[in-house]
Amino acid sequence: MTGNDLEVRLKIELPGGVRLGYGKVDLLRAVEEHRSISAAARSMGMSYRRAWLLIDELNQCFDEPVIETSIGGRAHGGATLTATGVRIIGLYQSARDKAQIAIRDELEQIANALVKSSEVTDK
Amino acid sequence: MTGNDLEVRLKIELPGGVRLGYGKVDLLRAVEEHRSISAAARSMGMSYRRAWLLIDELNQCFDEPVIETSIGGRAHGGATLTATGVRIIGLYQSARDKAQIAIRDELEQIANALVKSSEVTDK
Repeated sequence: MTGNDLEVRLKIELPGGVRLGYGKVDLLRAVEEHRSISAAARSMGMSYRRAWLLIDELNQCFDEPVIETSIGGRAHGGATLTATGVRIIGLYQSARDKAQIAIRDELEQIANALVKSSEVTDK
Repeated sequence: MTGNDLEVRLKIELPGGVRLGYGKVDLLRAVEEHRSISAAARSMGMSYRRAWLLIDELNQCFDEPVIETSIGGRAHGGATLTATGVRIIGLYQSARDKAQIAIRDELEQIANALVKSSEVTDK
Protein backbone atom coordinates (compact mmCIF):
# COMPACT_ATOMS: atom_id res chain seq x y z
CA MET A 1 0.00 0.00 0.00
CA THR A 2 1.50 3.30 -1.13
CA GLY A 3 0.13 6.80 -1.49
CA ASN A 4 -0.84 5.98 -5.08
CA ASP A 5 -3.33 3.42 -3.76
CA LEU A 6 -5.22 6.06 -1.77
CA GLU A 7 -7.92 7.59 -3.89
CA VAL A 8 -8.94 11.19 -3.43
CA ARG A 9 -12.49 12.44 -3.63
CA LEU A 10 -13.15 16.09 -4.09
CA LYS A 11 -16.13 18.23 -3.22
CA ILE A 12 -16.42 21.81 -4.36
CA GLU A 13 -18.77 24.02 -2.38
CA LEU A 14 -20.88 26.09 -4.74
CA PRO A 15 -23.04 29.04 -3.65
CA GLY A 16 -26.34 28.25 -1.96
CA GLY A 17 -24.94 25.22 -0.13
CA VAL A 18 -24.76 23.12 -3.31
CA ARG A 19 -21.84 20.70 -3.47
CA LEU A 20 -20.26 19.51 -6.66
CA GLY A 21 -18.80 16.08 -5.93
CA TYR A 22 -18.21 12.68 -7.44
CA GLY A 23 -21.86 11.69 -6.86
CA LYS A 24 -23.33 14.44 -9.03
CA VAL A 25 -20.57 14.13 -11.61
CA ASP A 26 -21.12 10.36 -11.86
CA LEU A 27 -24.82 11.06 -12.35
CA LEU A 28 -24.07 13.49 -15.19
CA ARG A 29 -21.85 10.85 -16.79
CA ALA A 30 -24.63 8.28 -16.48
CA VAL A 31 -27.10 10.66 -18.14
CA GLU A 32 -24.60 11.18 -20.95
CA GLU A 33 -24.32 7.42 -21.38
CA HIS A 34 -28.00 6.51 -21.07
CA ARG A 35 -29.52 9.66 -22.61
CA SER A 36 -32.23 9.44 -19.97
CA ILE A 37 -32.49 10.60 -16.37
CA SER A 38 -34.55 7.59 -15.31
CA ALA A 39 -32.13 5.09 -16.90
CA ALA A 40 -29.19 6.98 -15.39
CA ALA A 41 -30.84 6.91 -11.96
CA ARG A 42 -31.57 3.18 -12.29
CA SER A 43 -27.97 2.45 -13.27
CA MET A 44 -26.84 4.13 -10.06
CA GLY A 45 -29.46 2.52 -7.81
CA MET A 46 -31.01 5.93 -7.22
CA SER A 47 -34.64 6.99 -7.40
CA TYR A 48 -35.74 9.11 -10.36
CA ARG A 49 -36.86 11.77 -7.92
CA ARG A 50 -33.45 11.96 -6.23
CA ALA A 51 -31.62 12.05 -9.58
CA TRP A 52 -33.92 14.80 -10.79
CA LEU A 53 -33.39 16.86 -7.61
CA LEU A 54 -29.59 16.57 -7.86
CA ILE A 55 -29.65 17.60 -11.51
CA ASP A 56 -32.04 20.45 -10.77
CA GLU A 57 -29.65 21.74 -8.08
CA LEU A 58 -26.90 21.94 -10.67
CA ASN A 59 -29.21 23.40 -13.32
CA GLN A 60 -30.05 26.23 -10.90
CA CYS A 61 -26.40 26.84 -10.03
CA PHE A 62 -25.00 27.45 -13.45
CA ASP A 63 -25.61 30.14 -15.99
CA GLU A 64 -26.96 27.47 -18.36
CA PRO A 65 -28.52 24.15 -17.36
CA VAL A 66 -26.24 21.11 -17.28
CA ILE A 67 -28.90 18.84 -18.75
CA GLU A 68 -31.68 19.38 -21.27
CA THR A 69 -34.69 17.12 -21.46
CA SER A 70 -36.57 16.64 -24.67
CA ILE A 71 -40.06 18.15 -24.74
CA GLY A 72 -43.01 16.05 -25.78
CA GLY A 73 -41.23 12.77 -25.24
CA ARG A 74 -42.55 9.88 -23.21
CA ALA A 75 -42.53 10.01 -19.42
CA HIS A 76 -38.96 10.43 -18.10
CA GLY A 77 -37.93 10.76 -21.76
CA GLY A 78 -34.67 11.69 -23.43
CA ALA A 79 -32.09 13.82 -21.69
CA THR A 80 -28.75 15.10 -22.94
CA LEU A 81 -25.88 17.02 -21.42
CA THR A 82 -25.52 20.62 -22.50
CA ALA A 83 -22.14 22.14 -23.34
CA THR A 84 -22.04 23.39 -19.74
CA GLY A 85 -22.72 19.88 -18.44
CA VAL A 86 -19.90 18.44 -20.54
CA ARG A 87 -17.59 21.22 -19.35
CA ILE A 88 -18.38 20.71 -15.67
CA ILE A 89 -17.58 16.99 -15.94
CA GLY A 90 -14.24 17.81 -17.60
CA LEU A 91 -13.34 20.51 -15.08
CA TYR A 92 -14.20 18.25 -12.15
CA GLN A 93 -12.17 15.36 -13.54
CA SER A 94 -9.21 17.61 -14.25
CA ALA A 95 -9.44 19.11 -10.74
CA ARG A 96 -9.55 15.66 -9.19
CA ASP A 97 -6.52 14.43 -11.12
CA LYS A 98 -4.51 17.56 -10.31
CA ALA A 99 -5.43 17.31 -6.62
CA GLN A 100 -4.30 13.68 -6.47
CA ILE A 101 -0.92 14.65 -7.92
CA ALA A 102 -0.52 17.79 -5.79
CA ILE A 103 -0.94 15.89 -2.53
CA ARG A 104 1.23 12.89 -3.42
CA ASP A 105 3.58 13.52 -0.48
CA GLU A 106 0.75 13.68 2.04
CA LEU A 107 -0.86 10.52 0.63
CA GLU A 108 2.48 8.73 0.88
CA GLN A 109 2.86 9.73 4.52
CA ILE A 110 -0.71 8.75 5.33
CA ALA A 111 -0.16 5.38 3.62
CA ASN A 112 2.97 4.86 5.72
CA ALA A 113 1.00 5.49 8.91
CA LEU A 114 -1.65 2.89 8.08
CA VAL A 115 -1.76 -0.37 9.97
CA LYS A 116 0.58 -2.78 8.20
CA SER A 117 -1.91 -5.66 7.95
CA SER A 118 -3.81 -3.58 5.40
CA GLU A 119 -1.14 -4.61 2.90
CA VAL A 120 -2.24 -8.18 3.42
CA THR A 121 -5.99 -7.78 3.67
CA ASP A 122 -6.34 -5.16 0.98
CA LYS A 123 -6.98 -6.45 -2.51
CA MET B 1 -17.56 35.34 -7.00
CA THR B 2 -14.19 34.01 -8.13
CA GLY B 3 -12.50 30.63 -7.92
CA ASN B 4 -10.99 31.68 -4.60
CA ASP B 5 -14.49 31.83 -3.11
CA LEU B 6 -15.14 28.17 -3.91
CA GLU B 7 -14.02 26.00 -1.05
CA VAL B 8 -12.69 22.53 -1.65
CA ARG B 9 -13.39 19.56 0.55
CA LEU B 10 -11.25 16.51 0.32
CA LYS B 11 -11.91 12.90 1.18
CA ILE B 12 -9.19 10.30 1.16
CA GLU B 13 -10.28 6.70 0.80
CA LEU B 14 -8.43 4.53 3.27
CA PRO B 15 -8.42 0.72 3.16
CA GLY B 16 -11.50 -1.05 4.47
CA GLY B 17 -13.88 1.58 3.11
CA VAL B 18 -12.87 4.15 5.73
CA ARG B 19 -12.86 7.74 4.53
CA LEU B 20 -10.67 10.45 5.96
CA GLY B 21 -12.50 13.71 5.41
CA TYR B 22 -13.21 17.08 6.98
CA GLY B 23 -15.81 15.54 9.33
CA LYS B 24 -13.40 13.19 11.06
CA VAL B 25 -10.59 15.75 11.02
CA ASP B 26 -12.86 18.37 12.60
CA LEU B 27 -13.76 15.82 15.25
CA LEU B 28 -10.08 15.18 16.00
CA ARG B 29 -9.54 18.92 16.30
CA ALA B 30 -12.49 19.19 18.69
CA VAL B 31 -11.09 16.38 20.85
CA GLU B 32 -7.76 18.21 20.92
CA GLU B 33 -9.53 21.36 22.05
CA HIS B 34 -11.90 19.83 24.58
CA ARG B 35 -9.71 16.95 25.80
CA SER B 36 -12.84 14.83 25.90
CA ILE B 37 -14.73 12.81 23.30
CA SER B 38 -18.12 13.63 24.81
CA ALA B 39 -17.42 17.38 24.95
CA ALA B 40 -16.04 17.25 21.40
CA ALA B 41 -19.14 15.41 20.19
CA ARG B 42 -21.40 17.93 21.95
CA SER B 43 -19.55 20.85 20.37
CA MET B 44 -20.27 19.34 16.95
CA GLY B 45 -23.90 18.43 17.64
CA MET B 46 -23.01 14.76 17.36
CA SER B 47 -23.90 11.87 19.66
CA TYR B 48 -21.14 10.43 21.84
CA ARG B 49 -21.74 7.07 20.21
CA ARG B 50 -21.26 8.45 16.69
CA ALA B 51 -18.12 10.36 17.68
CA TRP B 52 -16.73 7.24 19.33
CA LEU B 53 -17.44 5.10 16.25
CA LEU B 54 -15.75 7.60 13.92
CA ILE B 55 -12.68 7.78 16.15
CA ASP B 56 -12.60 4.00 16.51
CA GLU B 57 -12.62 3.67 12.69
CA LEU B 58 -9.50 5.82 12.53
CA ASN B 59 -7.88 4.07 15.51
CA GLN B 60 -8.26 0.75 13.67
CA CYS B 61 -6.86 2.19 10.42
CA PHE B 62 -3.56 3.47 11.63
CA ASP B 63 -0.54 1.76 13.04
CA GLU B 64 -1.09 3.67 16.28
CA PRO B 65 -4.40 5.03 17.59
CA VAL B 66 -5.20 8.66 16.81
CA ILE B 67 -6.71 9.25 20.23
CA GLU B 68 -5.93 7.90 23.68
CA THR B 69 -8.47 7.92 26.48
CA SER B 70 -7.41 8.04 30.08
CA ILE B 71 -8.08 4.90 32.06
CA GLY B 72 -9.95 5.05 35.36
CA GLY B 73 -11.40 8.48 34.72
CA ARG B 74 -15.06 9.36 35.01
CA ALA B 75 -17.53 8.28 32.33
CA HIS B 76 -16.56 9.63 28.91
CA GLY B 77 -13.41 10.94 30.62
CA GLY B 78 -10.28 12.60 29.30
CA ALA B 79 -9.07 12.03 25.77
CA THR B 80 -5.98 13.33 24.00
CA LEU B 81 -4.61 13.13 20.51
CA THR B 82 -1.61 10.87 20.00
CA ALA B 83 1.36 11.91 17.86
CA THR B 84 -0.32 10.03 15.00
CA GLY B 85 -3.56 11.96 15.54
CA VAL B 86 -1.71 15.29 15.45
CA ARG B 87 0.13 14.17 12.31
CA ILE B 88 -3.01 13.10 10.49
CA ILE B 89 -4.64 16.50 11.15
CA GLY B 90 -1.54 18.24 9.78
CA LEU B 91 -1.29 16.03 6.71
CA TYR B 92 -4.97 16.44 5.91
CA GLN B 93 -4.80 20.24 6.29
CA SER B 94 -1.70 20.43 4.13
CA ALA B 95 -3.30 18.18 1.48
CA ARG B 96 -6.42 20.33 1.45
CA ASP B 97 -4.47 23.56 1.05
CA LYS B 98 -2.32 22.12 -1.73
CA ALA B 99 -5.37 20.77 -3.55
CA GLN B 100 -7.09 24.16 -3.42
CA ILE B 101 -4.02 25.80 -5.00
CA ALA B 102 -3.48 23.04 -7.58
CA ILE B 103 -7.00 23.35 -8.99
CA ARG B 104 -7.16 27.14 -9.03
CA ASP B 105 -7.74 27.23 -12.80
CA GLU B 106 -10.61 24.76 -12.64
CA LEU B 107 -12.23 26.63 -9.72
CA GLU B 108 -11.94 29.88 -11.66
CA GLN B 109 -13.66 28.35 -14.68
CA ILE B 110 -16.38 26.79 -12.54
CA ALA B 111 -16.92 30.15 -10.83
CA ASN B 112 -17.26 31.80 -14.25
CA ALA B 113 -19.94 29.31 -15.25
CA LEU B 114 -22.07 29.98 -12.17
CA VAL B 115 -25.31 31.88 -12.49
CA LYS B 116 -24.47 35.57 -12.20
CA SER B 117 -27.07 36.37 -9.54
CA SER B 118 -24.96 34.40 -7.09
CA GLU B 119 -22.69 37.42 -6.96
CA VAL B 120 -25.57 39.37 -5.55
CA THR B 121 -27.17 36.81 -3.25
CA ASP B 122 -23.96 35.31 -1.90
CA LYS B 123 -22.59 36.92 1.23
